[in-house]
Amino acid sequence: MRRCDELASCSEEAEIIVRPFASDAMRHAQSLAAEWMELAGMSVRRDNVGNLRGRYEAQSAGAPTLFLGSHLDSVRDAGRYDGPLGVVVAIAAVQHLRDASRRLPFAVEVLAFADEEGLRYGSTYLGSRAVAGSFDRRDLERLDADGILMRHAIRDFGGDPDRVADDVFTGEALGYVEVHIEQGPVLEARGLPVGVVVGIAGQNRYTVAFTGQAGHAGTVPMSLRRDALAAAAEFVLAVEAEARAEPEVVATVGKILAHPGATNVIAGRAVLALDVRSGDRATLLVASRRMLNLAEEIATGRKLTVQVTTDSRNEAVACDDGLVRLISRAIEAAGYTLAPLTSGAGHDGVEMSRIAPIGMLFVRCKGGISHNPAESVTVEDVGVAIDVLNRFLELRAKK
Amino acid sequence: MRRCDELASCSEEAEIIVRPFASDAMRHAQSLAAEWMELAGMSVRRDNVGNLRGRYEAQSAGAPTLFLGSHLDSVRDAGRYDGPLGVVVAIAAVQHLRDASRRLPFAVEVLAFADEEGLRYGSTYLGSRAVAGSFDRRDLERLDADGILMRHAIRDFGGDPDRVADDVFTGEALGYVEVHIEQGPVLEARGLPVGVVVGIAGQNRYTVAFTGQAGHAGTVPMSLRRDALAAAAEFVLAVEAEARAEPEVVATVGKILAHPGATNVIAGRAVLALDVRSGDRATLLVASRRMLNLAEEIATGRKLTVQVTTDSRNEAVACDDGLVRLISRAIEAAGYTLAPLTSGAGHDGVEMSRIAPIGMLFVRCKGGISHNPAESVTVEDVGVAIDVLNRFLELRAKK
Repeated sequence: MRRCDELASCSEEAEIIVRPFASDAMRHAQSLAAEWMELAGMSVRRDNVGNLRGRYEAQSAGAPTLFLGSHLDSVRDAGRYDGPLGVVVAIAAVQHLRDASRRLPFAVEVLAFADEEGLRYGSTYLGSRAVAGSFDRRDLERLDADGILMRHAIRDFGGDPDRVADDVFTGEALGYVEVHIEQGPVLEARGLPVGVVVGIAGQNRYTVAFTGQAGHAGTVPMSLRRDALAAAAEFVLAVEAEARAEPEVVATVGKILAHPGATNVIAGRAVLALDVRSGDRATLLVASRRMLNLAEEIATGRKLTVQVTTDSRNEAVACDDGLVRLISRAIEAAGYTLAPLTSGAGHDGVEMSRIAPIGMLFVRCKGGISHNPAESVTVEDVGVAIDVLNRFLELRAKK
Repeated sequence: MRRCDELASCSEEAEIIVRPFASDAMRHAQSLAAEWMELAGMSVRRDNVGNLRGRYEAQSAGAPTLFLGSHLDSVRDAGRYDGPLGVVVAIAAVQHLRDASRRLPFAVEVLAFADEEGLRYGSTYLGSRAVAGSFDRRDLERLDADGILMRHAIRDFGGDPDRVADDVFTGEALGYVEVHIEQGPVLEARGLPVGVVVGIAGQNRYTVAFTGQAGHAGTVPMSLRRDALAAAAEFVLAVEAEARAEPEVVATVGKILAHPGATNVIAGRAVLALDVRSGDRATLLVASRRMLNLAEEIATGRKLTVQVTTDSRNEAVACDDGLVRLISRAIEAAGYTLAPLTSGAGHDGVEMSRIAPIGMLFVRCKGGISHNPAESVTVEDVGVAIDVLNRFLELRAKK
């Protein structure tokens, strides 16, 4: 907890937490984490993209690697646990091995990723992409808000932008396991400190625009209206009803605009953003299709038109069955009931799944709040997470 | 129609129609209208607030006055008929009397109001307020967008801001009758050129704010959400259903905002504007109350809170039964079916009703469109309006 607080003090701004990729705040955070890694017996290096990597060698040379970790960058006005907690817990687990002078039949490498949130360059997962081999060299030419090329930012941070490909892990990877706050209220609602993640949800985003006929709010009778905002409202409720009826799906309209947007004018156009997620690939496809069909039906029923733009489509990533089983056994061995969860948010595991089986452990967070200074976890729950991670490492070692 | 086109050329901007209170464009428009009034045998003056007033005397001195008219100011990017048509038609009706060398047992005074839309000073009905005695002297201290006091604008326009009270009509008024485009689609839908107005709707405006709990669109299960935008959507549809169920009511939500308003964040707050109108005072009260109660019910049902602010309340103004009857007889005599209408928009009659019985005649306009360059009426329909107005004057004279 103290270490999370220390990392929180590494910020680009005085009053709030802002820790972007390749920033002075990140340099400061990495120097702290590097120190803790060394204390835990790890050899530490920074790779070309800027990830901090601490390696705790195996019993014997040539053994495979198990990755632990999370990210050290943050959103703007962040909390202190989204990212850092996973790094700190991973270091603590290695520290535990070191304290017991114990080596495992595999090396443990703690990855403190340099960019997951994408705050500075609007490109998420830069750190894990570099390790997983999915880093896109064209991203080097992106500019930040101050007009600084990513290529220059990486060089200023001490890396070689032309050798990011060297960061790719090419050995035998047993897995990538990340501890992260839940960012949702399920564990809290069920009274559990931790939960095993079975998959990272796929996510489709659409812009849905209804077009009707603007008109005077006082002079157009209800029966002659083609009110785009009323259609949008019907759609918002239809989306909610669909998602409620399908336990594997969440769907959200969080953004809406009515045009012209005046008190005394019937909206001629209403534009909204639809976000649909599911841990299951087929379910996501079916639910998204069904919702977009409803938009058509609603528009037709009201003599309006609707236009749908697909803004992004990200397929679901399943956690590895073997890792899920071992993490589950570790949770039960620690004395807790199992709560299998799907992660609605994206994580570095999405990229790491390209080179390794992935697993995740979620830690209960207060009110499910994240990306917010009000992020909160308890010291007891973090203790459980470290215990479960250690038990998991031992179970994996016995396998 | 030609005169409406000429008035349309009086604008503060080259490409669009913008004719604010006490502007050069208004001065130009008034000089045209004054000329037409004089041609129609009227004595013309401009009063202190800036209304143009043309008077066609009665058969004998000391007779009462019947007012006709409308306004010459416009909204920004206006059409050419909202206001000017009523002035031009009134002048044409007087011209008709003059051509027949006919005087009536009452004087006819054509009022071309200087401000109905309130474009320049955000204060509607300045012209008719001055005549009706409801002009608020405090408005003289209002500033326009260029920082010009209304007091100075009135003086620059040739009036005396300290003598606006002299504009009040204190004689015997038989009525105020205004011809205006419908600004709605009812006459078009019924295939009729004109319709008699039975009242000007009352109008209540509210701001309704639902507060729930913002959250991550991917991590908060549907069952644990307190989505403010979903509540707002339910309210939009409830408002629509209520208004549809009550033929005397129209209600509109034309403006909505979700906070924080991001694709991937459940809205913690949604704020919308509700506009409710009815020609019947009690119906307006009951319908408004019922809608606000529904907002409470929806909030409670979703474990949200709702806050309602009353932004404005304007009571309905009934047209005078006697004038409605005479206008109706004039329409029937001209060979058309009766279509009694309620005006959903406000008009100078609201103020004039303080000193005179009021009546209105609506003219069909294409698509119900107004406050828009696409405003359109046909020469035939305007011919019918002039004919009906003349028949009305004769019927009134016989009474």
